[in-house]
Amino acid sequence: MIRSEWCPAGEGRRQEAAVTGRVVFVLRRRRRREEGVDIICVNCGAVALARLHARSTPPSLHIVDIMKQEQVLTVDNMNQRLRRVRYAVRGPVLERALHIEHELEKGVPKPFASVVRANIGDCHALGQKPITFIRQVLAGAACPQLLASPALPPDVKQRVEEILDDCTCRSVGAYSASAGLWSVRRAAAAWLAARDGTPASAHDIYLGSGATDLIKALLTVFTEDVDGKPSGVMIPIPQYPLFSGALAELGLAQVEYYLDEERGWALDVAELRRALRNASATCRVRVLVVINPGNPTGQVLTRENMEEVVRFAHEHRLFLLADEVYQENIIAKPFHSFKKVMYEMGAPYCDMELGSVLTCSKGWAAECGLRAGLLELVRVHPGVVAAFCTARALMQCPTVLGQAALLCVMKPPTPGDASYEQFAMERREIRRVLRERAATAHRAFNSIPGYSCNAIDGSMFAFPRFEIPERAQRAARAQGIEPDEFYCLRLLEETGVCVVPGSGFGQRPGTYHLRTTILHSRSQFQHMMDSVRRFHAHFLHQYADTRLDCTTDTSTGC
Amino acid sequence: MIRSEWCPAGEGRRQEAAVTGRVVFVLRRRRRREEGVDIICVNCGAVALARLHARSTPPSLHIVDIMKQEQVLTVDNMNQRLRRVRYAVRGPVLERALHIEHELEKGVPKPFASVVRANIGDCHALGQKPITFIRQVLAGAACPQLLASPALPPDVKQRVEEILDDCTCRSVGAYSASAGLWSVRRAAAAWLAARDGTPASAHDIYLGSGATDLIKALLTVFTEDVDGKPSGVMIPIPQYPLFSGALAELGLAQVEYYLDEERGWALDVAELRRALRNASATCRVRVLVVINPGNPTGQVLTRENMEEVVRFAHEHRLFLLADEVYQENIIAKPFHSFKKVMYEMGAPYCDMELGSVLTCSKGWAAECGLRAGLLELVRVHPGVVAAFCTARALMQCPTVLGQAALLCVMKPPTPGDASYEQFAMERREIRRVLRERAATAHRAFNSIPGYSCNAIDGSMFAFPRFEIPERAQRAARAQGIEPDEFYCLRLLEETGVCVVPGSGFGQRPGTYHLRTTILHSRSQFQHMMDSVRRFHAHFLHQYADTRLDCTTDTSTGC
Repeated sequence: MIRSEWCPAGEGRRQEAAVTGRVVFVLRRRRRREEGVDIICVNCGAVALARLHARSTPPSLHIVDIMKQEQVLTVDNMNQRLRRVRYAVRGPVLERALHIEHELEKGVPKPFASVVRANIGDCHALGQKPITFIRQVLAGAACPQLLASPALPPDVKQRVEEILDDCTCRSVGAYSASAGLWSVRRAAAAWLAARDGTPASAHDIYLGSGATDLIKALLTVFTEDVDGKPSGVMIPIPQYPLFSGALAELGLAQVEYYLDEERGWALDVAELRRALRNASATCRVRVLVVINPGNPTGQVLTRENMEEVVRFAHEHRLFLLADEVYQENIIAKPFHSFKKVMYEMGAPYCDMELGSVLTCSKGWAAECGLRAGLLELVRVHPGVVAAFCTARALMQCPTVLGQAALLCVMKPPTPGDASYEQFAMERREIRRVLRERAATAHRAFNSIPGYSCNAIDGSMFAFPRFEIPERAQRAARAQGIEPDEFYCLRLLEETGVCVVPGSGFGQRPGTYHLRTTILHSRSQFQHMMDSVRRFHAHFLHQYADTRLDCTTDTSTGC
Repeated sequence: MIRSEWCPAGEGRRQEAAVTGRVVFVLRRRRRREEGVDIICVNCGAVALARLHARSTPPSLHIVDIMKQEQVLTVDNMNQRLRRVRYAVRGPVLERALHIEHELEKGVPKPFASVVRANIGDCHALGQKPITFIRQVLAGAACPQLLASPALPPDVKQRVEEILDDCTCRSVGAYSASAGLWSVRRAAAAWLAARDGTPASAHDIYLGSGATDLIKALLTVFTEDVDGKPSGVMIPIPQYPLFSGALAELGLAQVEYYLDEERGWALDVAELRRALRNASATCRVRVLVVINPGNPTGQVLTRENMEEVVRFAHEHRLFLLADEVYQENIIAKPFHSFKKVMYEMGAPYCDMELGSVLTCSKGWAAECGLRAGLLELVRVHPGVVAAFCTARALMQCPTVLGQAALLCVMKPPTPGDASYEQFAMERREIRRVLRERAATAHRAFNSIPGYSCNAIDGSMFAFPRFEIPERAQRAARAQGIEPDEFYCLRLLEETGVCVVPGSGFGQRPGTYHLRTTILHSRSQFQHMMDSVRRFHAHFLHQYADTRLDCTTDTSTGC
């Protein structure tokens, strides 16, 4: 089934037809010869040799020759669950952005000079400077000869010694225990105990390659059918698409509860009840996921709200999985951990099971690339923990240098330490910038006609809502994509701003959002907001509903 | 169901009853008070408060109080596949070794001064020094201020610049692309092309958190039932238990083919045919795993043997998954990659699909703790690759510092570089020690009466076979464990030597093996071999078959 439409990502980037319904070809490998490129039909596996016309947009291809190839592993006999996984944060909009960057490098004229990537919560990629203390500890741990150098302060050396003492033969190149280095788990327990004023045990702490790794591993534990029904997991809508993706891969039923946008993305227990009731016919709901502070929604739950959620989980015997990775990205309201709230509520709530995740990719450290996170498993059955740990042991251990970074986060310099002044200054500045950007983003989006944006109390995202005219919605659907993806792709093509459509996170039907990070430099953010404002006005004008449309479709309300 | 037998791992270490059939209690959390410790029954979840008598061996506990607790998540309603995962490398023998180390620290008298850990292929943990070049690059990448220092040679700085130029905003704390940094993938492609003299494309290379991560991810692709049958994966016996563990977790059928111990662990195609034929009634075999060089068996396949394997895979339309992680741990015979062999065999074999893994945890780098590996996917359907990549994207990316180490392995210093002399000297020494230890281990095991050991041509393990008297076998089965596990636990208790029983890797029924690493210092290895020799003589004497046994069991042949 070779057709004449071509992958807009072009030149070796891969994209699947099913994602958009438009792309039927994918480049497999670019030959370094004059004849052209090898391409393969995503649907049937047929191979073609084609010429690339790279200067056209999207790049067009001319088929030269078609070969047949019989694959052992095909899209039909592969794991169909994997085919259902979607991850909008690194989805079609980013794919197109990467291609545009490539075009810009090659001199293809565009109405903008560079792409502004605002798709992912990656502070360092937006120019935030790493915390010096963390990086010095990493350098010392990797290369202990440097400990002789006066360039490293004494508290850095002390933290390096702490890590090396815990590594077999003092090498970060030796495997650690699967659950992580004991020194890091102990430091994490002390940090958690201080955060909550409740006991915390290093035995309950499991380190991983980022919070994502641990969340997926924990969800894997719940994949057993119960009473002949598949297990279900309640997730908020909008949600962070790791959850929907992992549920799809693991074959767990996704049970959606909506956050209330009108009330600052509040978590309404009546809505939890509705979602649970609706789902009960088709699955056995076992897990309640709460993302606090919200991603992409940026709200911070109140303590009262959390108590209601805990009571709900207890009443329905749900395992509470708290994604609390943005707890150190607090802008306005105070953060409470679910562990603390459950503990302080007393019996029977303080005896409930809980899984909570943290990471050094977020907060002031923001070390996404180092891949380190932790899971606290509270009151989980030790037989379950034993099986969980054996399965984790197959993967050996999380990266030891990532664990070293986590130790720095859990045990940062304190007043009197040689690094303290610089550390405190760097952390203060990161927090100040976050607060400033949150206020700016909130103001800026609400000042665009047709846009509205809730206050950002935590996280590093804005998730504004905007209108899409009925005509634009129809144009999108004619292309087989969601209206907000259509909007975001147009925004990208016209302004270079790369954001993630709300449909990638989920949203109430008929509403449209985008998620953007708010951590760009002030001038870049200003440029981004000006671009969005101009684009939106132009978009509304271009797709303004006309009298003609109203006669064929009365649902537009004009 | 609280009984008076106690977890021998003691004091907070967890162990599941099902593993050994002996342990019914597990310590949950040690209280820091006089009253004792909280413990939970693995089978029923009942909670007890108990006093610990730590100085007894194994530590005994006295129940003070029993509480009831109802868990939401139990061993019965958890993912039953996870409960079937076993990983002997970090299994009961290591658990017991860790406990003994703890006892030694506390002054509990033992017939040895320290535990000799020989359970895991972790060179740095056995005293091998890291390659200076790699560690300097890591330090520079983590802490670019150090680039101003004269301590780092110019080629180190150049490699650091290469990495930082490829990181967004020049920070290793920024996420990379999910498949890895382009610079590393490109260097890997060049390395693979040079290794094989065949084309290699950076587009076909996917980086991960170690080879384990990538092997499991690739096996996940094959979990779909075909023609109403579960998919099956052929693995060698003995095998590295990542495979059996991952198959158990993923619900793939394990199809075992035996390596021929009498012929130096050769891979016999007639045996492949037998295994395939036998399995065809219950599953649809789709993947053929080959581990070359062998782990735990240490053989290196001949080119002729590999060609037979390729023809077999082609004939039966099997996807070839080549675990080639020990390809740089070559002692005697030359290593050929499956990719090269397939390519050189010409059509139709050069058009077959292949997945091959490599890692920086093995070879001369041996950076286990950094967690970096790569998967080359050759001629895999792009629709399959697209779904694979989306699922990988959920996990964001492999650790960037691990990727930096992989870059150093794929692009080491070359003659003329400032670091070259030192690098070449360090690498030469590592290779020399490996060859020397392999010869020593081979000689030493064969000199023990009742032991035999094949030549070690590659990898870092010896996998000798030994006799276990019938009486000892019965004693083991009375305890509900395998005879070789019984043997290895006794070896540990009496000598402090911690090795992995052959049953953890699989072996022909009635044969017994152990796997040991061979990378200890010369004196430590000598001590270990002396311990094994003395222990074995004592063990044979202690369990010598008597006339009485022969009257009750004629199968012993006496």
